[in-house]
Amino acid sequence: MEHLIIGICGGTGSGKTTLAEKIYNALKDDALLISMDCYYKNNSHMPFEERIKTNYDHPNAFDSDLLVSHLLDLKCDKAIDYPTYDFTTHLRKDEWIHAEPKKVIIVEGIMLFAIPEIVNLLDIKIFVDTDADVRILRRILRDVKERGRSLDSVVEQYVSTVKPMHESYIEPFKRYSDVIVPEGGYNKNAFDMIVSTIVDKIKS
Amino acid sequence: MEHLIIGICGGTGSGKTTLAEKIYNALKDDALLISMDCYYKNNSHMPFEERIKTNYDHPNAFDSDLLVSHLLDLKCDKAIDYPTYDFTTHLRKDEWIHAEPKKVIIVEGIMLFAIPEIVNLLDIKIFVDTDADVRILRRILRDVKERGRSLDSVVEQYVSTVKPMHESYIEPFKRYSDVIVPEGGYNKNAFDMIVSTIVDKIKS
Repeated sequence: MEHLIIGICGGTGSGKTTLAEKIYNALKDDALLISMDCYYKNNSHMPFEERIKTNYDHPNAFDSDLLVSHLLDLKCDKAIDYPTYDFTTHLRKDEWIHAEPKKVIIVEGIMLFAIPEIVNLLDIKIFVDTDADVRILRRILRDVKERGRSLDSVVEQYVSTVKPMHESYIEPFKRYSDVIVPEGGYNKNAFDMIVSTIVDKIKS
Repeated sequence: MEHLIIGICGGTGSGKTTLAEKIYNALKDDALLISMDCYYKNNSHMPFEERIKTNYDHPNAFDSDLLVSHLLDLKCDKAIDYPTYDFTTHLRKDEWIHAEPKKVIIVEGIMLFAIPEIVNLLDIKIFVDTDADVRILRRILRDVKERGRSLDSVVEQYVSTVKPMHESYIEPFKRYSDVIVPEGGYNKNAFDMIVSTIVDKIKS
């Protein structure tokens, strides 16, 4: 079985996860969805105080070697067990998830296109582009309401890390994508185009 | 017969015409390709000296009413006769070209997305995005080698008109496109996606 690897990249709050999930749902049993967030490095050797000071918006925060080896396994029709991550403790969880190879592997993450070893494995590169003000509003709502963070801490982290890292490791790689999708998961025409293309490719 | 209208917009030298022609060639007898350049206003009432001073990088330089009425005709399965334009005299030519309606109408032009009456008729909006330095290099080569213009006149026109008009009437409308294609006609994955989508839509 041939495998098609679709990479979806974009900044925080861009709508890349929404788009990835919609594509995954449209393809039903033919697809596997992998979030790069699961591949944050396991910093269990660090004390909590050090872990919360770590820059999680940098390519080095990810266990890229593991993600690359998993993508290679899936491409070779081998099943994987992928890690899970706890965002409150900043630690890899004990639970690993078993995943069988599927025709279409969708992998989504903020730093995906900044890691050349990953980019080389992607058959289609999609960048989700949403205005920075809309993205920070979505992030504030998510982090304050769903993750229980204070507004001040979200703003501080955004200005000191998220924004400069976005400008260094996300935005510059937009130009290397195959297509740029304005407004991510809320763009129906782009969604239809992507699904049509994938369905055509896996049929042929 | 249902008709699908695909709009392709982008700055000078972006590769939009190359992309439009490749899509047209891929669809063979199912497509009609219309260039917005054919719809420059006929300024035959102006003396040549005035015509060469006209700003051709502004939405008002186009006979949008005629283009809109032609797109409506094609959508209603009616044939059209579209104008042709002479870029050396800045005049509409005597020759009009007869075109039968096709399943897919591809219309490409720099100001396409700046004219709401046209945007409303487009089923898919594609913006071709290429760096400004690459675009000006392509324009220089085209205007100097193919159109016999002097390098100085190309530079003067670019800085005084083309660039500011691009920033006012082309770049801001990128955000309203369905997909953005980096590097236009030279982006094979994006081309495949667009053609797959169109073929799927006209089949169903």
